[in-house]
Amino acid sequence: MAKYTSMELLRFLLFEVHPVQPLFKFERYAHLDEEQAWMIIESAKLLADQEMFPYLKIMDETPARYDGKGAVITHPQIKRIIQMAADQSWIGGAAKFEHGGMQLPEMIFNAGQHIFQAANNSVQGYLGLSTGSADLITSFGSPEQIAFYVPKIYEGKWQGTMALTEPQAGSSLSDIITSAKKINDTYYHVKGQKIFISGGQHQGVDNFVHLTLARIEGAPTGVKGISLFIIPKFRPELDGTLVYNDVYCAGDYQKMGQKGYATTHLSFGDNDDCRAYLVGEPNQGLKYMFQMMNGARISVGQCAASVAMAAYQASLQYCKERPQGRVPSEKDPLKSPTLIINHADVQRMLLTQKAITEGSLSLAMECNRLYDFVHATEGQEKTDNLLLLEILTPIVKTYASEQGSRSAALAIQTLGGYGFTTDFPVQQLYRDLKIMSLYEGTTGIQSLDLLGRKATMNNGKALTLLLTQIQETISLANLEIDLKEYGIALNESIQTFVKALNHLLTYLQKSDPDRFLSDASVFMEMAGHLVIGWQWLKMAVKAKELMQQKELNDLTNQFYQGKIHTMEFFFKYELPHADACAQILMNEKNLTNLKEMDCF
Amino acid sequence: MAKYTSMELLRFLLFEVHPVQPLFKFERYAHLDEEQAWMIIESAKLLADQEMFPYLKIMDETPARYDGKGAVITHPQIKRIIQMAADQSWIGGAAKFEHGGMQLPEMIFNAGQHIFQAANNSVQGYLGLSTGSADLITSFGSPEQIAFYVPKIYEGKWQGTMALTEPQAGSSLSDIITSAKKINDTYYHVKGQKIFISGGQHQGVDNFVHLTLARIEGAPTGVKGISLFIIPKFRPELDGTLVYNDVYCAGDYQKMGQKGYATTHLSFGDNDDCRAYLVGEPNQGLKYMFQMMNGARISVGQCAASVAMAAYQASLQYCKERPQGRVPSEKDPLKSPTLIINHADVQRMLLTQKAITEGSLSLAMECNRLYDFVHATEGQEKTDNLLLLEILTPIVKTYASEQGSRSAALAIQTLGGYGFTTDFPVQQLYRDLKIMSLYEGTTGIQSLDLLGRKATMNNGKALTLLLTQIQETISLANLEIDLKEYGIALNESIQTFVKALNHLLTYLQKSDPDRFLSDASVFMEMAGHLVIGWQWLKMAVKAKELMQQKELNDLTNQFYQGKIHTMEFFFKYELPHADACAQILMNEKNLTNLKEMDCF
Repeated sequence: MAKYTSMELLRFLLFEVHPVQPLFKFERYAHLDEEQAWMIIESAKLLADQEMFPYLKIMDETPARYDGKGAVITHPQIKRIIQMAADQSWIGGAAKFEHGGMQLPEMIFNAGQHIFQAANNSVQGYLGLSTGSADLITSFGSPEQIAFYVPKIYEGKWQGTMALTEPQAGSSLSDIITSAKKINDTYYHVKGQKIFISGGQHQGVDNFVHLTLARIEGAPTGVKGISLFIIPKFRPELDGTLVYNDVYCAGDYQKMGQKGYATTHLSFGDNDDCRAYLVGEPNQGLKYMFQMMNGARISVGQCAASVAMAAYQASLQYCKERPQGRVPSEKDPLKSPTLIINHADVQRMLLTQKAITEGSLSLAMECNRLYDFVHATEGQEKTDNLLLLEILTPIVKTYASEQGSRSAALAIQTLGGYGFTTDFPVQQLYRDLKIMSLYEGTTGIQSLDLLGRKATMNNGKALTLLLTQIQETISLANLEIDLKEYGIALNESIQTFVKALNHLLTYLQKSDPDRFLSDASVFMEMAGHLVIGWQWLKMAVKAKELMQQKELNDLTNQFYQGKIHTMEFFFKYELPHADACAQILMNEKNLTNLKEMDCF
Repeated sequence: MAKYTSMELLRFLLFEVHPVQPLFKFERYAHLDEEQAWMIIESAKLLADQEMFPYLKIMDETPARYDGKGAVITHPQIKRIIQMAADQSWIGGAAKFEHGGMQLPEMIFNAGQHIFQAANNSVQGYLGLSTGSADLITSFGSPEQIAFYVPKIYEGKWQGTMALTEPQAGSSLSDIITSAKKINDTYYHVKGQKIFISGGQHQGVDNFVHLTLARIEGAPTGVKGISLFIIPKFRPELDGTLVYNDVYCAGDYQKMGQKGYATTHLSFGDNDDCRAYLVGEPNQGLKYMFQMMNGARISVGQCAASVAMAAYQASLQYCKERPQGRVPSEKDPLKSPTLIINHADVQRMLLTQKAITEGSLSLAMECNRLYDFVHATEGQEKTDNLLLLEILTPIVKTYASEQGSRSAALAIQTLGGYGFTTDFPVQQLYRDLKIMSLYEGTTGIQSLDLLGRKATMNNGKALTLLLTQIQETISLANLEIDLKEYGIALNESIQTFVKALNHLLTYLQKSDPDRFLSDASVFMEMAGHLVIGWQWLKMAVKAKELMQQKELNDLTNQFYQGKIHTMEFFFKYELPHADACAQILMNEKNLTNLKEMDCF
């Protein structure tokens, strides 16, 4: 079996760099220990090896496809794997026992999801969507809603989805027009069109639970008038039977990648018989939905890291096996060709991939850990963890998806012409990955969120907390003679970053929010480089510590050495581009406020 | 009809920035004037509008595909368009009258090819390959070979191909093993396998002329023992009839993009009856082939620019039509959504695409012009033009393909989720484009060529000539008060570039070619930014000049203003990354000479 992720890396991240063990001291996770946690993750690997990875290519070649009559035909393995994953608690595993879960920390649960994402990102889409939907109902639904819907979703019988986007509104949720009319205390009638609904009415489950945003008649305009509804495809009658609820799948979208994952167009209430059940209070829908959305953003970031990881592993394997050419100092054409991994430029491409994918995965694990601690802690600690998580969310989503695409492009490049052919998986992974910078808010939206909200909220408290965390890692690096220079370098970049931010804030002080935000994407790019630089320094500090602590065998020693080497690589090859971003941010010229679009 | 390139831009590049007019003073081109030249280009546009662009999508959806019996099934339009293009001289148009051509300057001929590449890059592949093959025969073949093969290729009856790559050798041509055994003074018997043969035995033509590299028995090892052969699929008997020449198409490659363009595996001499006709002298094959290869590299660069241009045009059109959201300073949710082109980040994405695609196309035109002057001039002038062309060749190939991919990714991004769907062409163009960084030498190979050969050849003469050219543009910019600062900025970057190169050269002086070349790709990236910065400054200088010279209508004025604006944009957003490259190049650490590959 081809390798699509590194279990050694996962173990290092989970138990050393972002230690999950302290969580086991909390009552909620007291039933777990390190060994059990690892066994659970290994069970995910087995499932992915046997039931997911082998279907990666065929799902690309036989895309999910609308049948013209209201349903989407999916590969038969989808139905099977949803059931198997549910049976092994990979939909509801992080939920409490009382809701049918295994009370796994998100870190463990998402380590498993990472394996699925790397093995077959289409398959994992269905699972993740169900998890998020059920969690949302658990958080804000009534006890009856929880009792009725959540178990069916966790059992893999029903599919949860999130239905936000509308044709006319796109990313601008304040402009959605799907309407809800109150009929009685039990239900509303909903009417409207939702597009880009992932996991919409396919063949893998018996029913769908569409978590849908709509406007109750008479609600305020804009985002303040949006409510959240549960809209099942088949609704329960009083006697418990299920009847069709006037939610019609009107078509699908064929895509350049992630073809196994159905993307649908749903039409609600064509026959004025679509019943919707309000979740929580009216007009609070967007706030509720953002719980799921924030989780989804981290998940998309992790998925991007995982898909890029699978491409990196395929690239690495090829480079270790393919002989071609000779290094420049070898002039004898009679000498056998060398393995291409021995070419400097190939090493550069591999190390770039390693730096991006492992760095992104480390950041995703940082986020998963924060998520767990938000839920495990109280008071100031909880608030701080949440602020940190909130500021890192757009960064992990964006860095992993944007740089992940670059990483997968390098994977193709290492295979030469073969990389472009369907004989190898790297081209599929490159295509699959491209959606990640669009899902759940494009890079532009994430960047506005980072600079326009997260960097300034609570008087910049989230950013201060983040910089404090980074400084802690720098302090640890400063204690190691080999690592000190990298601590100094990161610190310098941080100072430059703060200077650039302060420069941008002057526009806000001048009441010019347009100019303040116009280079938000460049700010995001810079933040991404710094945060991943931090992750690499953190990994290097830990690797160094472990190398000093114990006698290691050669392989383990190489593993840790590889972490330190990749950190050095990141600092040489990637971090300088953060300075370039700062140069752009400090540039006073405003070149993206053209009024005359014909200037293009 | 959707716009896929800008005729205004083409006119500006051809007649103003890189003026073709001086060529008309040479006898070879004396039959042309500006008006006629433009009519010819407009005829290409008409052909592309009617016969190429409308088939872009269907050729993606119905890929060229091996029939299992020795042939590749192509879309029927391929046969039709090869014939139509040939009839309108779009295969042999640049050749001399005596060879059946129209004696067009490459600039004009390739302006037409640009239109084809932007309209349908699969289709143009077949045409360009035939052109290059016939030119190669004309340059090095015997009068009989020229008389027999060239007209049939120019007439679109026979397809030319280049057969270099072998499974075991890949990019390392010194390792090819296809063998040629001399039978008599007329022909050799050839035996071997060639892979990735574009335009191989498909249904669009009657016969194929495979320009094939092979080793004559007893030839020296390495690149010095490679000879060039003409190998037709059907060979002419003495009586003029054609018989099968034992060239079997053994399969094809299915690809992630450029699916209309057949990529084949050819097997020569399975039945020991494959006759090959030597071109020129034995063992000179690689030298000959590099005439075609160098042309092909420029052409691939231009094609990348063209495909990225088509994606940019689709992106621009969408952004001008799609209303969504409001700018940050607009707080009223009741205000109608604005067109997305009015969002700063969308303008950033559009201007980035414009900067990359138009800059790349300008560089391709610079190369085409140099090519024409190499052939039109004599003595020192010719030598200088050739040196300039040689150093720019790997740069245009690499910048356009690598940055073009980034540009097409931004095109997807501007469309949001729609960009990922097959409803819009941007995703296809993104996929098509990815091959360009692999074709005719990967980015790694081009970078070794630039730093290892071109930058140092003739004691650095080519580089000196290039820097002189750039300085000339800077001098012109310095005369304009608005442009002076950009001239200064480019000059500073050039100084940094020279410093970085000198730093690298110290490794060569220390007899360490491996270290000298280890960051060649970063050197290439830096060179690309500088050369495109030069092209933008050149365009801005010309735009400024024209704006001062004459009274212009609003549209023309906006066009020129747009050039100056995009130049400013390039200098703010792109050029700083050249400094980051310099920082990497000056970094002494050698991190890509790992001996233990397990460190990964």
